[in-house]
Amino acid sequence: MSKTNRGRFFEDYQLGEVLHHAVPRTVGAGERALYHALYPARHALYSADSFAQSCGLKASPLDDMIAFHIVFGKTVPDVSLNAVANLGYAQGRWLRPVWPGDTLRAESEVIGLKQNSNGKTGVVWVRTTGLNQHDEKVLDYVRWVMVRKGDIDAPAPETIVPDLPDALSVDQLHIPQGLDFSNYDFARAGEPHRWGDYEVGEKIDHVDGVTIEEAEHMMATRLWQNTAKVHFDTSARPDGSRLIYGGHVISMARTLSFNGLANAQMVVGLNGGAHANPCLAGDTIRAWSEVLDKAETSAPGVGAVRLRLVATKGGAPFELRDAAGKYRPEVLLDLDYWALMPR
Amino acid sequence: MSKTNRGRFFEDYQLGEVLHHAVPRTVGAGERALYHALYPARHALYSADSFAQSCGLKASPLDDMIAFHIVFGKTVPDVSLNAVANLGYAQGRWLRPVWPGDTLRAESEVIGLKQNSNGKTGVVWVRTTGLNQHDEKVLDYVRWVMVRKGDIDAPAPETIVPDLPDALSVDQLHIPQGLDFSNYDFARAGEPHRWGDYEVGEKIDHVDGVTIEEAEHMMATRLWQNTAKVHFDTSARPDGSRLIYGGHVISMARTLSFNGLANAQMVVGLNGGAHANPCLAGDTIRAWSEVLDKAETSAPGVGAVRLRLVATKGGAPFELRDAAGKYRPEVLLDLDYWALMPR
Amino acid sequence: MSKTNRGRFFEDYQLGEVLHHAVPRTVGAGERALYHALYPARHALYSADSFAQSCGLKASPLDDMIAFHIVFGKTVPDVSLNAVANLGYAQGRWLRPVWPGDTLRAESEVIGLKQNSNGKTGVVWVRTTGLNQHDEKVLDYVRWVMVRKGDIDAPAPETIVPDLPDALSVDQLHIPQGLDFSNYDFARAGEPHRWGDYEVGEKIDHVDGVTIEEAEHMMATRLWQNTAKVHFDTSARPDGSRLIYGGHVISMARTLSFNGLANAQMVVGLNGGAHANPCLAGDTIRAWSEVLDKAETSAPGVGAVRLRLVATKGGAPFELRDAAGKYRPEVLLDLDYWALMPR
Repeated sequence: MSKTNRGRFFEDYQLGEVLHHAVPRTVGAGERALYHALYPARHALYSADSFAQSCGLKASPLDDMIAFHIVFGKTVPDVSLNAVANLGYAQGRWLRPVWPGDTLRAESEVIGLKQNSNGKTGVVWVRTTGLNQHDEKVLDYVRWVMVRKGDIDAPAPETIVPDLPDALSVDQLHIPQGLDFSNYDFARAGEPHRWGDYEVGEKIDHVDGVTIEEAEHMMATRLWQNTAKVHFDTSARPDGSRLIYGGHVISMARTLSFNGLANAQMVVGLNGGAHANPCLAGDTIRAWSEVLDKAETSAPGVGAVRLRLVATKGGAPFELRDAAGKYRPEVLLDLDYWALMPR
Repeated sequence: MSKTNRGRFFEDYQLGEVLHHAVPRTVGAGERALYHALYPARHALYSADSFAQSCGLKASPLDDMIAFHIVFGKTVPDVSLNAVANLGYAQGRWLRPVWPGDTLRAESEVIGLKQNSNGKTGVVWVRTTGLNQHDEKVLDYVRWVMVRKGDIDAPAPETIVPDLPDALSVDQLHIPQGLDFSNYDFARAGEPHRWGDYEVGEKIDHVDGVTIEEAEHMMATRLWQNTAKVHFDTSARPDGSRLIYGGHVISMARTLSFNGLANAQMVVGLNGGAHANPCLAGDTIRAWSEVLDKAETSAPGVGAVRLRLVATKGGAPFELRDAAGKYRPEVLLDLDYWALMPR
Repeated sequence: MSKTNRGRFFEDYQLGEVLHHAVPRTVGAGERALYHALYPARHALYSADSFAQSCGLKASPLDDMIAFHIVFGKTVPDVSLNAVANLGYAQGRWLRPVWPGDTLRAESEVIGLKQNSNGKTGVVWVRTTGLNQHDEKVLDYVRWVMVRKGDIDAPAPETIVPDLPDALSVDQLHIPQGLDFSNYDFARAGEPHRWGDYEVGEKIDHVDGVTIEEAEHMMATRLWQNTAKVHFDTSARPDGSRLIYGGHVISMARTLSFNGLANAQMVVGLNGGAHANPCLAGDTIRAWSEVLDKAETSAPGVGAVRLRLVATKGGAPFELRDAAGKYRPEVLLDLDYWALMPR
């Protein structure tokens, strides 16, 4: 019997089953420095203890996206090793900051199953939860993937498609305990624009671009212990290219968005997201944002802003779909998230 | 007089001489994160404090290979700057875990000398010891290298070839103090296979592959303060290629072996090793293992397994030598080590 | 109104104005490890707590160049986003070590302005100061850059050119509190040469070379939160190449100078520096030094040495200028600094 993990196929998932993902991970100063080396990360709350403390936190937490990537990476061997496509995200909530020294683990509950009409693949919905060493939830989100069947003759499961709202409402967001933007230092943060300065419908071109290298995306992806072959092995795809982990594009776009959204400090909700086209080394990533919604929160000085974040590898800013409603070929990412901002 | 280090030549070594290698090094959270970024490292004991604590250790130590590379790197300016070839390793023992914050240094005793019949080179055997800030030994191993003579007319030394057993016996291995696999969590570790599930002679194809980049192997090699020119300078070799540090291949193969040997947690003995062929950027490294021996240990729940670890840059798994007994051209590494595993 | 930072143009600077640069940054074990991965850094005082403690310090500080790069990076959005050229440095002093856990910020005072005769650009002189979380100065230096005018019709300011001595005198240097080289361990430091062994006029070829990769210089530059587009975006320059941050060349040359200057432990003064020619990926950097001056200091066992550090991408060592007095095309950097050395 082979001792290596062949991954799960569609027929291996049971509705309601909980997958306990392997290899917990302690994170700290090293992951933080690498995040700054791999991405143009400048949001002040994740850059300096002093700034985070002036916002009511005990220290600078690890970037929200580090938490996301670590938790996501843990799920790969159980959820997406035989995935044909990563179809979407929904209902993602950051529930608690991750501090240097925390140890993260992850588990996923199967909440939906639907065999495709071709009989060869199916869609699996999981709600993944990241937990720290105190068994406190730090993050949860729903993700659905298309997975190959291992045995074509396996019977189709009952179709259950979870009901997933398009977006979280503001009262579903978790504001980190103690967060207070009353004395927010806009000069140190890098931009003067506050929550009240953004209008729903406003679009921002983040201007800067980064050309992607193989060594960087592989280092990032390994750092999250994501083991999907296509990211590392030139023989895994017919054209010899290494497909870049979608999360690398998310982090690149989010950090590029500093220029224009420097005060959208904390990511607290993930409403949805699509990896519209593949990203390869040599592509130059740019980003633009659109303000989708705004809401007040109960925390002092803290507003919430719902943003669309689009990453491209060319083309003009603010172009998203073609006449037929399909993503334009240069669009890499269309992400919908909630961030916290000083009012 | 030149102030730069020209390195030692064969005639500069004296039997019994002890070389105190320069530049001690404090290691910690940063080296740990970089190791995870550079290699697909997932062994749980080195990934999470909580897992290491559940195995009786005070925290997650730094990967055994970090200790090896740091100690090895210190020896390069004194042992292998003028080396023609790194001929072999033997009798390597990990004697004590390296904890974040430890400061490592190294010294080597010359234990063998043999001038080659061509009169231009000779073989030097050294026993290298790594020590921490408390002057406790953390690692020792024998290594032999072929070194150029600086002065062809220097007289040949008396030939002394040390007697090096093929492998360490299990009672020569040091089990870290407190290690206890009685309550080992196989689900968190990532695989269900325990010591009793492996048979001598069994071979495991680790399946995954990683295509190597220049930036990555140079970052790894510099991290260990290994200064051999051939790894960094395209003008150092006639073909303009940078030769990849053999230790980079060792770490890549060892971490790839997680898939099938996730529970071979701690490396405690290095019986031998050969860098069979050079590795260059663009090569895709894969790995396979063979179980060479098994033994019980006195520590609770802890078994020892002796493994052959082979790294390749192509070809089929389990092919090692050609009809003439020579390593096949696609074989990069043939390593023989002892690891500790839950029984 | 655009929310992104377009940078300042020449007419936006006022003499005497103080710019408070954004995004403070906490540095530590991660930045330290990355510095060792990105450069062949081996100076013992920055490598090991034990060595630094034997020199009277409480621990190993972060490399002096990490402090410089972090402070420099903070100034880029306010000083050099629209710069045509980085013209020079002067009067740089390291005033206090940076310890792991420190949080750095930066501010710059405009100390000189001179519109160029073409009416399209001008030169801006700033004195930049880096401060830690206790508002103690850790570094200051003067830098001048040529900046585009945004509005050609803006009136020229009064010309004020600061008087900048060619070099700091030794009594202007700050010796870190407690520094004591009386018991300096030359064997652990890696070379036997002490202050008394170097003569004014002596030149040292540092021998080793490193071929530069895109991924590495971008990771380094991002780590210092330096956002200048030309370093990251292949579409920013007509030839599609990414210009390498001059500080990457400084750190590469300084660390290569270990071989011959292993005991020039601490950088305490920056007298001047010119980035003579652009550096691109694929260049192989080498370095040579010239002893320009020597002085005693009041600290026990501590001497000061003034060094010229030249980085090249080819050519023979010790060649700096052509017959017309221009930098030779292979010269990348001509740096003039003070370092502390055991007497």
